[in-house]
Amino acid sequence: MPIEPRPSVAALEPYQWEDSSVAIAARLGLPVEDVVRFDMNTVPWQLPARWAAGAEALNEYPDTSYTDLTRAIAAYCDVPESSVVVGAGGDELISLIARAYLDSSRHYAVSDPTYSLFAVASDIAGATRRAVPGDEHFRLDRAAFLAAAADAHVTWLANPNNPTGEVLPQDFVREVARATRGVVVVDEAYAEFSGASSLPWCFDVENVVVLRTLSKAFGLAGMRVGWVVASPAVTAVLAKVRPVSSISVVSARLGVAALEQAEAMRTLVRDLAVERQRLASALADLGCRVVEGSANFVLAVLDAAGAARAQSRGLVLRTYGAGHRLHGWSRITVRSPAENARLLDALRG
Amino acid sequence: MPIEPRPSVAALEPYQWEDSSVAIAARLGLPVEDVVRFDMNTVPWQLPARWAAGAEALNEYPDTSYTDLTRAIAAYCDVPESSVVVGAGGDELISLIARAYLDSSRHYAVSDPTYSLFAVASDIAGATRRAVPGDEHFRLDRAAFLAAAADAHVTWLANPNNPTGEVLPQDFVREVARATRGVVVVDEAYAEFSGASSLPWCFDVENVVVLRTLSKAFGLAGMRVGWVVASPAVTAVLAKVRPVSSISVVSARLGVAALEQAEAMRTLVRDLAVERQRLASALADLGCRVVEGSANFVLAVLDAAGAARAQSRGLVLRTYGAGHRLHGWSRITVRSPAENARLLDALRG
Repeated sequence: MPIEPRPSVAALEPYQWEDSSVAIAARLGLPVEDVVRFDMNTVPWQLPARWAAGAEALNEYPDTSYTDLTRAIAAYCDVPESSVVVGAGGDELISLIARAYLDSSRHYAVSDPTYSLFAVASDIAGATRRAVPGDEHFRLDRAAFLAAAADAHVTWLANPNNPTGEVLPQDFVREVARATRGVVVVDEAYAEFSGASSLPWCFDVENVVVLRTLSKAFGLAGMRVGWVVASPAVTAVLAKVRPVSSISVVSARLGVAALEQAEAMRTLVRDLAVERQRLASALADLGCRVVEGSANFVLAVLDAAGAARAQSRGLVLRTYGAGHRLHGWSRITVRSPAENARLLDALRG
Repeated sequence: MPIEPRPSVAALEPYQWEDSSVAIAARLGLPVEDVVRFDMNTVPWQLPARWAAGAEALNEYPDTSYTDLTRAIAAYCDVPESSVVVGAGGDELISLIARAYLDSSRHYAVSDPTYSLFAVASDIAGATRRAVPGDEHFRLDRAAFLAAAADAHVTWLANPNNPTGEVLPQDFVREVARATRGVVVVDEAYAEFSGASSLPWCFDVENVVVLRTLSKAFGLAGMRVGWVVASPAVTAVLAKVRPVSSISVVSARLGVAALEQAEAMRTLVRDLAVERQRLASALADLGCRVVEGSANFVLAVLDAAGAARAQSRGLVLRTYGAGHRLHGWSRITVRSPAENARLLDALRG
């Protein structure tokens, strides 16, 4: 019998992630083409940003400084290149921050509900959780959150929040940042949809880390590219722990190409907001309780028979187990008009 | 001033990684095409394994179980799929094992010289190093290594070793594994070149973890795909800490395609061994001390003027700073016959 892992790892349960579309199709006896992911908060488009096979020497390692990608990100965010740290998706950066700043003697503040990886990564580091439950509409309890953040070593905040779509005003985010000496991570994965960001002021408060990704509005979830923007005090720490070549050369190249398509992305995002309102209205017309939010998903309480019908047709919804704050609710990604129509048809029966 | 990172991170210096070819070319005033990486231990080929743009939905997340890739790896290694854990290069798995099994109360055994990331990842975790210096030919001191491994929580062993190319007999690897309750990581990044592997017996000893990669003989360093083969006791631990989607959909697809080209890879590897012997002989003919080893690189003490001439022509060598066991030596990747000829020309003056 080999040794046990370190104690905080030994205590963990493996996190359950979503099944693949292939596995879902096999279980349902459907062709995989019929499966539509309403559960992943991805967008229904790919930008016309292509990688030419043969353009990269795949047998050589990536440029560990990711110069081209970092430059394109800095230009897109209008920040200095030195403030950008790239990673294999925002998820890698969440894990990196947890590893750098948390251990079993430290604790973190997080709202409930919010993006589950904040707690997963912090728990792997062995830190103690201070969870702040939202109100009956799942909105952040701001006073309680400020109090929890005050002496937390890391405070995790998604803006807009996932899975509620709630947008916090910048004044409040700034108040959180000023209330603590801990690191405040503002996860802006969905910021292109809400249009608001902490980037214009993030260097004013040295402990703010803004997290962004190409997985959402830029339509590159499959390529795993994310980054943080932070002050030198934080980037110097991340430089000590970051993996030097976790992003493939093709991901880096496609990332640059996608960032060059920011205008096309913005047009698609505007159209998606119209589609989100349409979907939310249609769900309300069906008698569902709906929280629309400002991202590319909505929350709804679906009729059980309708939801089961949708799932049986390969229209995958994000649901929440017993004990979760959102038990009984479904998080529904806004997809293409045709795919959303398929969902509404299934719900209508 | 934001909080300090946890103490073991605060104490670290950022690790210095190799410059990009673009940066080297700019510094030398050369076209980037002139730069040849003799410092990265990559191969000079790309297998005819191509990704068709448009074949993957880049806007959707990878299958977090990486079913196709895992199946192809299991077939290549002749092991059960359940024994395989994939990651973004072998480097991510080294980091993962360090995070799972090491902390500031634990220690690790490592030889000197060996692959530097073993110590980097373990030091980030805060563990204490037990380094075992090699003999005057940089060969492992087996008795001392066995003693160091005995009570180590993690023992790191590269076979063949990097940067020496030394191959340890399987009987000795097994002896190490049996000498400790700690995890024994056998990094076989270069095993396709040496032809020897612990895979046929690794399940006999529950604490053995065999690490493999597509970055070397398979010519996919730029795509970041690696894996471990381990017993259920270890894979269950890694399942608690592994990032679920660090490998891009294109990397996963190209990985499967490369593994289907294993026969083509083996032919190229045979040719490379001939080229390695040719390069080692030519260096010896120049009067250099040479350690040939059994991987895709050689160690040599080069004439200083010749080495400087090579570097000035963009022929990048891996050298070692003052204080390193290999100070004064160069690690030279075996590249194509034409590239190796350029290097020998430069060394001859």
